[in-house]
Amino acid sequence: MKHIASAKNEIVKQWKKLLTKKGRLQTNRFLIEGEHLIEEAVRAGIVKELIVRESYQVPGSWKRNADVFTIDDAVIKVLAETETSQGIFAVCEMKQASAQLERGRYLLLDRLQDPGNVGTMIRTADAAGFDGVVVGPGTVDVYNGKVIRATQGSLFHLPVISMPLEEAVNALHEQGIAVIGTALEGATSYQTIAPMDALGLIIGNEAQGVAPELLSYCDERAYIPIRGKAESLNAAVAAGILLYHFASVD
Amino acid sequence: MKHIASAKNEIVKQWKKLLTKKGRLQTNRFLIEGEHLIEEAVRAGIVKELIVRESYQVPGSWKRNADVFTIDDAVIKVLAETETSQGIFAVCEMKQASAQLERGRYLLLDRLQDPGNVGTMIRTADAAGFDGVVVGPGTVDVYNGKVIRATQGSLFHLPVISMPLEEAVNALHEQGIAVIGTALEGATSYQTIAPMDALGLIIGNEAQGVAPELLSYCDERAYIPIRGKAESLNAAVAAGILLYHFASVD
Repeated sequence: MKHIASAKNEIVKQWKKLLTKKGRLQTNRFLIEGEHLIEEAVRAGIVKELIVRESYQVPGSWKRNADVFTIDDAVIKVLAETETSQGIFAVCEMKQASAQLERGRYLLLDRLQDPGNVGTMIRTADAAGFDGVVVGPGTVDVYNGKVIRATQGSLFHLPVISMPLEEAVNALHEQGIAVIGTALEGATSYQTIAPMDALGLIIGNEAQGVAPELLSYCDERAYIPIRGKAESLNAAVAAGILLYHFASVD
Repeated sequence: MKHIASAKNEIVKQWKKLLTKKGRLQTNRFLIEGEHLIEEAVRAGIVKELIVRESYQVPGSWKRNADVFTIDDAVIKVLAETETSQGIFAVCEMKQASAQLERGRYLLLDRLQDPGNVGTMIRTADAAGFDGVVVGPGTVDVYNGKVIRATQGSLFHLPVISMPLEEAVNALHEQGIAVIGTALEGATSYQTIAPMDALGLIIGNEAQGVAPELLSYCDERAYIPIRGKAESLNAAVAAGILLYHFASVD
């Protein structure tokens, strides 16, 4: 156990770097905050360092493979990304999920920008029983603090695979698995497409949708009918409706 | 057209009151912000005053029934609830929806606390073709700025009725319309309940769910199965899945 009082300490500078995408990529580590998320990360076996306010009693099960640091308020201020921080953090190791797509249901994210949307989609994919999430280039970094908080821990449950979406579509097609792209034009209502025990479902950028070239590789195009006077659905809500529809065979 | 330069002007003080629930209730008016929402409010015929920065060209169609005020940055600062304000506001009149529940589909909100959730639920109910939203006591004020922004204008499309939920359930029952409550215990999967052309769907408080007494009046209890390791769904996502499921007969 080591105590760190100053925000200028060299170790704190290393932790601070984990608040940026660049720093996370360089070290293959990321920082999480709050008891609930740390509990989930401990279960996933990825916690390397625990960083807590002095008064905090670290549960024994948390310490097994992790170094423990206590910190002063000055350090909490520097690391906290939430307004009401509990002053409890952990440095975790990224576990690269196998890039092999087994037979199953996958959510594919094409250039999604909003961290809250992406995190909520990962959480919903987990709840719906999907087997993994494929994150294409141009989608917000899933190790961004806002994404992780919105996943509510599902980032640690579900394989999250970074790869070009064309590759993922190819890998699914080689196994005879259909890929469904969401689109407004040339699309059919999702309700007319039956649930499937294996599929790829592509959700596109909040404003532009799925990229046209990627859409051209899809076996079907699905849209969600809007019946009232609303112009559109919230992106995370739309994803939830589709995830639960296509997974509802069990 | 009147110009107001000082945030201390008496008219500005009246506008500021509309940022509080008390001020809104006293005047039966509320304040909205941003071009898109004002466009929708103009179409709904509820705009009484337009408040814009001096450089802004007010569309002719907006002015028909509204007084126009131009304001300086100091006033914008006082009224703006968003970080990147366009400096365009409108004072609107609350239109009390008829408390008569016609035959149709209604979303009932029981003590929902998060403004973003409530706004997104109203938006999704509109998109799914529901006929109205009944807001019970204890749910966040739907004229709260965050709620209105999350509805993306659906607050002006859809009847939003404030009444005790027991009354709403009675009114639906008198017409032979089933009411479905969401619950985790003693509930069946929503997928086993068929879509309906008329129903009441009750969504409960984010942490506590639907109040037990209210639940006891329901004809069915529905839950959304969680298949992966996620503990729960985001409340707005859960509502979206149910709204689209029960409305999918058309």
